[in-house]
Amino acid sequence: MSAFKKLVDHSQKCSHFNHLAAICGWDQASMMPSGGNQARSEAMAQLSVHIHGMMTQPQLSDWINDAENESLNSEQQSTLREIKRNWQQANLLPEKLVQAKSLAGSKCEHAWRTQRGENDWVGFEKNWREVVELSREEAQIRADFAGLTPYDAMLDIYEPGTSSASLDTLFSDVKTWLPGLIDQVIDKQSTEQFTAPSGKYSTDKQKALGLEVMNLLQFDFNHGRLDESVHPFCGGVPSDVRITTRYDENEFVQSLMGIVHETGHARYEQGLPKHLSGLPSGEARSMGIHESQSLFFEMQIGRSDEFIGHLAELAGQQFSGNEFEKSNFQKIYTRVEKDFIRVDADELTYPAHVILRYEIERDLINGKIKHTDVPELWNLKMQQYLGLSTEGNFKNGCMQDIHWTDGAFGYFPSYTLGAMYAAQFMASMKNDLDVSSVIQSKDLTPIFNWLETNIWSKGSLLTTDELVKQATGETLNAQHFQDHLKNRYL
Amino acid sequence: MSAFKKLVDHSQKCSHFNHLAAICGWDQASMMPSGGNQARSEAMAQLSVHIHGMMTQPQLSDWINDAENESLNSEQQSTLREIKRNWQQANLLPEKLVQAKSLAGSKCEHAWRTQRGENDWVGFEKNWREVVELSREEAQIRADFAGLTPYDAMLDIYEPGTSSASLDTLFSDVKTWLPGLIDQVIDKQSTEQFTAPSGKYSTDKQKALGLEVMNLLQFDFNHGRLDESVHPFCGGVPSDVRITTRYDENEFVQSLMGIVHETGHARYEQGLPKHLSGLPSGEARSMGIHESQSLFFEMQIGRSDEFIGHLAELAGQQFSGNEFEKSNFQKIYTRVEKDFIRVDADELTYPAHVILRYEIERDLINGKIKHTDVPELWNLKMQQYLGLSTEGNFKNGCMQDIHWTDGAFGYFPSYTLGAMYAAQFMASMKNDLDVSSVIQSKDLTPIFNWLETNIWSKGSLLTTDELVKQATGETLNAQHFQDHLKNRYL
Ligand SMILES: [Zn+2]
Ligand SMILES: [Zn+2]
Repeated sequence: MSAFKKLVDHSQKCSHFNHLAAICGWDQASMMPSGGNQARSEAMAQLSVHIHGMMTQPQLSDWINDAENESLNSEQQSTLREIKRNWQQANLLPEKLVQAKSLAGSKCEHAWRTQRGENDWVGFEKNWREVVELSREEAQIRADFAGLTPYDAMLDIYEPGTSSASLDTLFSDVKTWLPGLIDQVIDKQSTEQFTAPSGKYSTDKQKALGLEVMNLLQFDFNHGRLDESVHPFCGGVPSDVRITTRYDENEFVQSLMGIVHETGHARYEQGLPKHLSGLPSGEARSMGIHESQSLFFEMQIGRSDEFIGHLAELAGQQFSGNEFEKSNFQKIYTRVEKDFIRVDADELTYPAHVILRYEIERDLINGKIKHTDVPELWNLKMQQYLGLSTEGNFKNGCMQDIHWTDGAFGYFPSYTLGAMYAAQFMASMKNDLDVSSVIQSKDLTPIFNWLETNIWSKGSLLTTDELVKQATGETLNAQHFQDHLKNRYL
Repeated sequence: MSAFKKLVDHSQKCSHFNHLAAICGWDQASMMPSGGNQARSEAMAQLSVHIHGMMTQPQLSDWINDAENESLNSEQQSTLREIKRNWQQANLLPEKLVQAKSLAGSKCEHAWRTQRGENDWVGFEKNWREVVELSREEAQIRADFAGLTPYDAMLDIYEPGTSSASLDTLFSDVKTWLPGLIDQVIDKQSTEQFTAPSGKYSTDKQKALGLEVMNLLQFDFNHGRLDESVHPFCGGVPSDVRITTRYDENEFVQSLMGIVHETGHARYEQGLPKHLSGLPSGEARSMGIHESQSLFFEMQIGRSDEFIGHLAELAGQQFSGNEFEKSNFQKIYTRVEKDFIRVDADELTYPAHVILRYEIERDLINGKIKHTDVPELWNLKMQQYLGLSTEGNFKNGCMQDIHWTDGAFGYFPSYTLGAMYAAQFMASMKNDLDVSSVIQSKDLTPIFNWLETNIWSKGSLLTTDELVKQATGETLNAQHFQDHLKNRYL
């Protein structure tokens, strides 16, 4: 058996265990009663150890070396590249560091769940110090290996191929026009009247509406489900994608558009190349590309004039009231406000939240600032970008996100990269298709065909730059994002 | 580290993987869309291989030998006994045979799903021949190891400690009184009038009713759930027990009592000794004892005069109609009829279905009859025990059950052993408690305390005979079952 074939078999074996982890993880978040948590966590930890053990088997190194000298076609070369990348990621860090970081992260995150509500920065800082230290240690090891700066080495986990040099360029451009645009739009919207949701919107009806919307978006229910969880997510495996939402009976806005968002993630997974199933080349390209698909659904399709009309119509079949008029829906879903919380932010202010975090975590991981500098920097940047003070307001400031509590530094930029890629894909799609008419027709097949051909079916065969260039004729160009925002909001 | 401690650690590791198998198996039956089946089956098969690999690690043999010479307290001795038993079971059969049987069984079962509906004995026989041959091979290996007859060696998988000699004695006694009793009861009920369910009983209301009944039976919803599946079962793990039912909107009878039955299984699991979690000594004693708990709930509690009253009252909160009168409920749930299908059989005729199967599978595995003799023997015994002919009627005769299709020979007796144990437990409990008043009071705690003390908390620390003797003062005595039936039905 060729070394490459051995690697393929090994990779497929690992993917079976990852499958079990995905389903049991979904269950833990959406089905499991809380009394089951301890035994489940132990079982999942054991599974992690087993998967890590498989990924660090000593013979893999030889197989990879041997496979690199075998004659492989271009698809196989991509598979080998991604197998090697995963193998490097799994073998790079000393197990002691992985365990120490996991422990410190769990401890910090667990305490944070209470500390955030209590605005307890002092308590949080004590745990977080260790998470930051261990993350810096991790980043340094990654940096030494890859010949990158520490932060760039962390970025590479989530967004292979992206550097802080390119992000600096992208984001400093955004900063030249975004704050002004936000003010302009808020001014424009200041006299706008709309009916806010008020009243009881039953979970059953919201769910029925969500399922209708998923049908419109051609979610494949033979290969997936919609359920509920406290924090909505897209999980499961490509042949069985599990998305979740959270219903609030006082409003329908979040859950409805949340379902559109997760359906975007789900269709990417459902559309991944089946002949590469179980191989890393058959997986989603990166966090940023994943988010580009959810945001393509949520922002590019979901907030389009035509789709808002369909949403209002479908909602009107479940509910009645002025709030379900199309023009009211439009106002609700394009409302811009300066606020503290990233996860509740609108499309326009969202990048400001991301840029702020990016600048802080970049300097923190590169050792340019101390973790105790973060609250002050947060306040400063929040004032600059959104005109809001977070002085003393830790819970709605630097303590609001889960990401940093367990050391996921380098993740935040993916959100805005996703929004930018989504805008670029739409601009390119519009050269091929009359997108408005397609959405208007309620049969969105041509749009999904475009995405399937250009993005989903490519898995990780191409690098991100290659993928985007093949799909749109150019690598990331943030002008499309700016044009999109001005076009929609001005 | 002592050898015993090594075995305990190993056992707990295995239990984590069994946990994942249980949850993913539950998901496959109750949540998974059908398009997810192939990848899931592959992942589950990989997990099976992994667990089998753990159970057959070469060092286990030494550890067991060493542990047998260590000084262990009586609980540890029980744990070691059960660890050794599991190890023997996993190591007894050549892997080639296990795989061949699994393959032949899957093939036969898969084809059977169509062949049964088509009454296609000829087609079924061709696949089944191989299953029977491989099962005989398995039974012979087990027999040689254990010094038992082939069939007794199969019985030992499900019901350790039980022999066909004792079953022959038990069942030949039942055969002396059961057919006559059935005729007597049918004659008595022949003039009885009752209102059969008719109409639409919505799934939502049936589910709400089921949850109420589970509350009455003190199912712990912090450690379990109720869901739906085509074939109801009790799965999951002791800290998170998943029971399922199937709703038919034309009637409520099956689902309602099915939930009572599965709740019995579930409370046994929920009541297993927590300090032995992850060890085989902390697991349920046997299939027969498991069924004794579900049948205790379904037959001993569930069909008692007082509980039927509660069921009728709770059902009356969801539905209205004459069929929900207590006296009507009583008639529905104690109706006796001679019929072909075991799974639909009432309490009184059920043992006849089991004895028939026992006698046939015993002789089949011991090589006294050929697999092609089965239809004729089935017809003969069905005529003797229930006065029904199954000549040419394979689908409602010997092709009705799934058990034999994949070679689960030796399982059927557990059903009737369970019914007998349940009657014996109730007889004994009545010496300690005024069971009728307790049920009438709607607070069944004293009953559950008795079961928890005497059965659930014992796990597999005792042998079945020891367990039953400690709980009731005697080993299995079928007189209690006969008394129970005569008392209820005459
Ligand atoms: Zn997303
Ligand atoms: Zn049962």
